[in-house]
Amino acid sequence: MSLAPTRTDQQAQPDDAATPTASGTPADGPSADVTEAVLAIARRAKVAARALATATRGTKDAALHALADALVTHADEIVTANADDVARGRENGMTAGLLDRLTLTPDRVGAIADALRELASLPDPVGEVVRGSTLPNGLRVRQLRVPMGVVGMIYEARPNVTVDAVGLTLKSGNAVILRGGSAAASSNQAIVRVLGEALVAQGLPADLVQSVDEFGRAGGVALMRARGLVDVLVPRGGAALIQTVVRESVVPVIETGVGNCHVFVDASADPAMALEIVLNSKLHRVGVCNAAETLLVHRDIAPTFLPVALAALNEGGAVLHGDATSSDLAPQGVDVLPATDADWETEYLAAELAVRVVDSLDEALEHIRTWSSGHTDAIVTQHLPSSERFVAEVDSAVVNVNASTRFTDGGQFGLGAEIGISTQKLHARGPMGLGELTTTKWVVTGEGQVRA
Amino acid sequence: MSLAPTRTDQQAQPDDAATPTASGTPADGPSADVTEAVLAIARRAKVAARALATATRGTKDAALHALADALVTHADEIVTANADDVARGRENGMTAGLLDRLTLTPDRVGAIADALRELASLPDPVGEVVRGSTLPNGLRVRQLRVPMGVVGMIYEARPNVTVDAVGLTLKSGNAVILRGGSAAASSNQAIVRVLGEALVAQGLPADLVQSVDEFGRAGGVALMRARGLVDVLVPRGGAALIQTVVRESVVPVIETGVGNCHVFVDASADPAMALEIVLNSKLHRVGVCNAAETLLVHRDIAPTFLPVALAALNEGGAVLHGDATSSDLAPQGVDVLPATDADWETEYLAAELAVRVVDSLDEALEHIRTWSSGHTDAIVTQHLPSSERFVAEVDSAVVNVNASTRFTDGGQFGLGAEIGISTQKLHARGPMGLGELTTTKWVVTGEGQVRA
Repeated sequence: MSLAPTRTDQQAQPDDAATPTASGTPADGPSADVTEAVLAIARRAKVAARALATATRGTKDAALHALADALVTHADEIVTANADDVARGRENGMTAGLLDRLTLTPDRVGAIADALRELASLPDPVGEVVRGSTLPNGLRVRQLRVPMGVVGMIYEARPNVTVDAVGLTLKSGNAVILRGGSAAASSNQAIVRVLGEALVAQGLPADLVQSVDEFGRAGGVALMRARGLVDVLVPRGGAALIQTVVRESVVPVIETGVGNCHVFVDASADPAMALEIVLNSKLHRVGVCNAAETLLVHRDIAPTFLPVALAALNEGGAVLHGDATSSDLAPQGVDVLPATDADWETEYLAAELAVRVVDSLDEALEHIRTWSSGHTDAIVTQHLPSSERFVAEVDSAVVNVNASTRFTDGGQFGLGAEIGISTQKLHARGPMGLGELTTTKWVVTGEGQVRA
Repeated sequence: MSLAPTRTDQQAQPDDAATPTASGTPADGPSADVTEAVLAIARRAKVAARALATATRGTKDAALHALADALVTHADEIVTANADDVARGRENGMTAGLLDRLTLTPDRVGAIADALRELASLPDPVGEVVRGSTLPNGLRVRQLRVPMGVVGMIYEARPNVTVDAVGLTLKSGNAVILRGGSAAASSNQAIVRVLGEALVAQGLPADLVQSVDEFGRAGGVALMRARGLVDVLVPRGGAALIQTVVRESVVPVIETGVGNCHVFVDASADPAMALEIVLNSKLHRVGVCNAAETLLVHRDIAPTFLPVALAALNEGGAVLHGDATSSDLAPQGVDVLPATDADWETEYLAAELAVRVVDSLDEALEHIRTWSSGHTDAIVTQHLPSSERFVAEVDSAVVNVNASTRFTDGGQFGLGAEIGISTQKLHARGPMGLGELTTTKWVVTGEGQVRA
């Protein structure tokens, strides 16, 4: 659905939402004042979350529509605030691509509002009975889906992420505390104000949506330390941001988004299918986490497949880095730069691809084991045992057989909107929708049962 | 099932598996040698886990039976090693209760072996299709349950936890790295050796079960820092151990076990039912995390209920701490010590109970919100709206209506064996069985689909 495009925020961007210093470690903690202010925000969020936890779907959906209407009503105000961010970005030498992503127009605000309306149409995960049974002693035991409570989002520039985060957390019954990128500070401030007023008009607490942006980087760090008040932190942005949050946070974190994705073209692959999948995985959209970064080709098919594939990739504008064999197989006029370990490791997030010829499925699996970020890896094959081994042995959130890596997306998977793509194994793995923003609670009902 | 009794390891015990110094923070990190040795262990575990990840249920169950047989065959050897631990414990002034829990006999080894056989009879969580569908473009999308990979266990004295951890991780397809309490070091060493030999005899890698006990406390700290190699750490023991691991670990942690559990006797409660639930929750077994630590009584029922309840608790050997009202209601000869905030906060893990009279359900909810550890809280009531509000508003892993808190247990819930009781919201909440030791993987299968 329409929230999907927000995942371009996972492009390489100035990593200003986190606090890495030159040494890669954060500055000494936030001041006592900032810490206390952020803790006060978190306490208010916890109280507000309580009100929402028991709200009906009707209440939440009405609020989502009201938030959407408010965005449209106040579109001019938001666009004006956004113009400040864009002007500052231009002064600071932001690239045209990033400037475009930062820019809001009334139409774009309308699209963001529509995404909230689509969220309202999704099922409410809260209250789902995950499992349940009646025990021999007559106790009824049910595991119910309930909201997390308070969700912290630390993210980078794009202001539409602000609205997505608010919509997804609201629908799943949670309060949200936002720490956005300074590049979008004015836009985010205007959006949070508009959404807060709309919540109050709906009889909901404004504290459901709060920001710590006013405290700058220290606010983000204080949020990472608010264990017990913030139930989960979701960092969303480039690798540096995510690593900083994972390293520094004492609040539980869901790691998202870094995608060093592979396509392995097996000996038995249908060459036309393989070519289409490789081109789509790499070039359909280059700055996103589910784009392919490395192409592995089985030695038996390389002599026929690679010359065609490299020419097409080159034609499509891809910069190529390859091992000696792929380089030898490149047609005249197609440059293949020598690949090093840095290429196997890099998430280019650009029209750039590393290429390697492997001797076997085992060598492909070993390469992926060594270098994959565990996001999405694909095999193209007609050989059933190869596809089965690939699926069983690749330890990634998503494993594809004969399909483009670009499908890894909550909207594409039919989960509705997503708040990010988890590359960790705990709690959520792969596209995270509304359900992943909830936890469960066991409810045990009896008539006086005691343990013998 | 028979693994349930192992939860007595959650009793207060010397917190020697973690590394708190007098200041509550760990000593400076492990030496480079220890770090490298532990990382080498973790790397071997990761390789071994790969072999197990694709093993069939038949292979795993046969291994569980072989491990059980090996424990019985080598019971004498294990009991002899255990005698060293018991002798050392006695020298160090360990209490009779702890000594009893530490002690292994051939019969107890047999019971531990039987628990492994019962694990073999449980369904295999690996391979379960959690959800799946065919998308409009023909892609088949499935979310499959797969093993985590490498599980770290940091725990305290009881040697049967060693066997439980091995059995649960093996059945769920994971490798395990153990850091047990030094009080059981000889027993654990003997058990790990016997189990490792039995694995090899089954054609499985001995590296599926490894220990870092030889490195002492530094081994535990190195394990907490092995991010990327260890997929999840499960600390199991007293509050100090758990807090240390939560604070120090950069590996994702599942927090377990601290249970400051409440029973609220509502105005409408059936007094006889309430009395039985209170006595069972507090006195059925006092040193466990699902025992009640605070009794809240509605003012309207207190004058008739509390004199009887306090007398019965006193009769049952409970030391009582109460607010002024409960103290006034105590019958002659029943001492009620004045309760302070420390009492509301404390997990006594003993025949000791805090008692408070509250004016309303709201006041009970507020008390629980303030002091509960989020483990298990119970209401006794005949009033449906009160039970519904209690269930909706108490933010704990398990919420009971008219049932003893003592039911919070994987065995009691019908989940089979448990590795602990999670009090966190991420990934697992409440009793953790085999399923909670797994993660999921999305498998996307197509015939050349690319994204438009």
